Amino acid sequence: MINGKNPPDVGIQLPESKMGMDTVTDSPLDGNVNGKAEVMQVVLRALCLVTSVTALSLMVTAQQASTITVLGFNIPLHSKWSFSHSFEYLVGISAAVALHLILQLLISGSRLVRGSPTISSRNHGWLIFAGDEVFALALMSAGSSASSVSSLNHSGIRHTALPNFCKPLHHFCDRVSTSIVFTFFSCFLLAILVVLDVLWLSSKH
Amino acid sequence: MINGKNPPDVGIQLPESKMGMDTVTDSPLDGNVNGKAEVMQVVLRALCLVTSVTALSLMVTAQQASTITVLGFNIPLHSKWSFSHSFEYLVGISAAVALHLILQLLISGSRLVRGSPTISSRNHGWLIFAGDEVFALALMSAGSSASSVSSLNHSGIRHTALPNFCKPLHHFCDRVSTSIVFTFFSCFLLAILVVLDVLWLSSKH
Repeated sequence: MINGKNPPDVGIQLPESKMGMDTVTDSPLDGNVNGKAEVMQVVLRALCLVTSVTALSLMVTAQQASTITVLGFNIPLHSKWSFSHSFEYLVGISAAVALHLILQLLISGSRLVRGSPTISSRNHGWLIFAGDEVFALALMSAGSSASSVSSLNHSGIRHTALPNFCKPLHHFCDRVSTSIVFTFFSCFLLAILVVLDVLWLSSKH
Repeated sequence: MINGKNPPDVGIQLPESKMGMDTVTDSPLDGNVNGKAEVMQVVLRALCLVTSVTALSLMVTAQQASTITVLGFNIPLHSKWSFSHSFEYLVGISAAVALHLILQLLISGSRLVRGSPTISSRNHGWLIFAGDEVFALALMSAGSSASSVSSLNHSGIRHTALPNFCKPLHHFCDRVSTSIVFTFFSCFLLAILVVLDVLWLSSKH
């Protein structure tokens, strides 16, 4: 089993360029270039972890108390992220993305330290692609959902007398907006990671 | 050039299973299977076109007039999809997705009729992947944004006295909800198409 590099029943070595198959086209992605791609993946994952944790912590610290005047009534307002399903959804998704990224970083970090390639097999590559794709879609969903609630808070709802919440609650609204920006940035980074995953999958046969 | 199946400088044929390379793994995706995958792509694209046009037409026909009582005041309500930025966004994205799908269907249809493969080159494959990925993310964004507005209409906003809009406007709300469901279904179909694109990219070298 382990006693020879060439299995005994092959015995003939053809130069790669003369095999008449498309194996040639993937050679630029091997070796050094693949090593660079792996380091780039790890860096992007770490950056994405930072942005999603930032989004998460900005959102969970968003709260403010104030008063608002609707149709002549003074209504005390206490704004907190957990009052909106969309903001709760953003927190949940950001936490899940952070966990996914920490897991991936631990696996690929330990593999890099041992000197083995970060992605062990095609199936592993597909699994990472699927995870990144699903979480990119989830972050896009969470960011969009939260930003449409946040924009309603900013502008009011056009077909009612609902006023602009963000005048009395600008501290809360700013924090939420910044959190949403970081969520979209995490989504953008994950979309780049998806492309890198596909590059890896299309370079390995 | 065309006079021999084996290029003269190879001359040796090795049984595929004994070449000791991973070329074997991609063979099931060639020939007949690839033909099936192409037909499946066209069917999924056609289905996705139907769902996105349905979402679009349900949304642009959503409007209703009614009255609502807020804090003792009778307020006349006229609800229309174009009153909400999120619903306008959904209409725009659905229209863009439908155009993208019509273009892709025209290209791959004419190629299938001529008997050539639907995807001409690796670059073409990457282009289709990029288009499908971007539009899947855009549909997810539009669907989430619209559904968070729609759920606010259903439940009211928890930190204000805003009531449930969908009691007096149930016809409008039902139409919007169905449109959103079709948007998410289009997104799901495009996500499957993305996986098929990646399968194609990873089977061609």
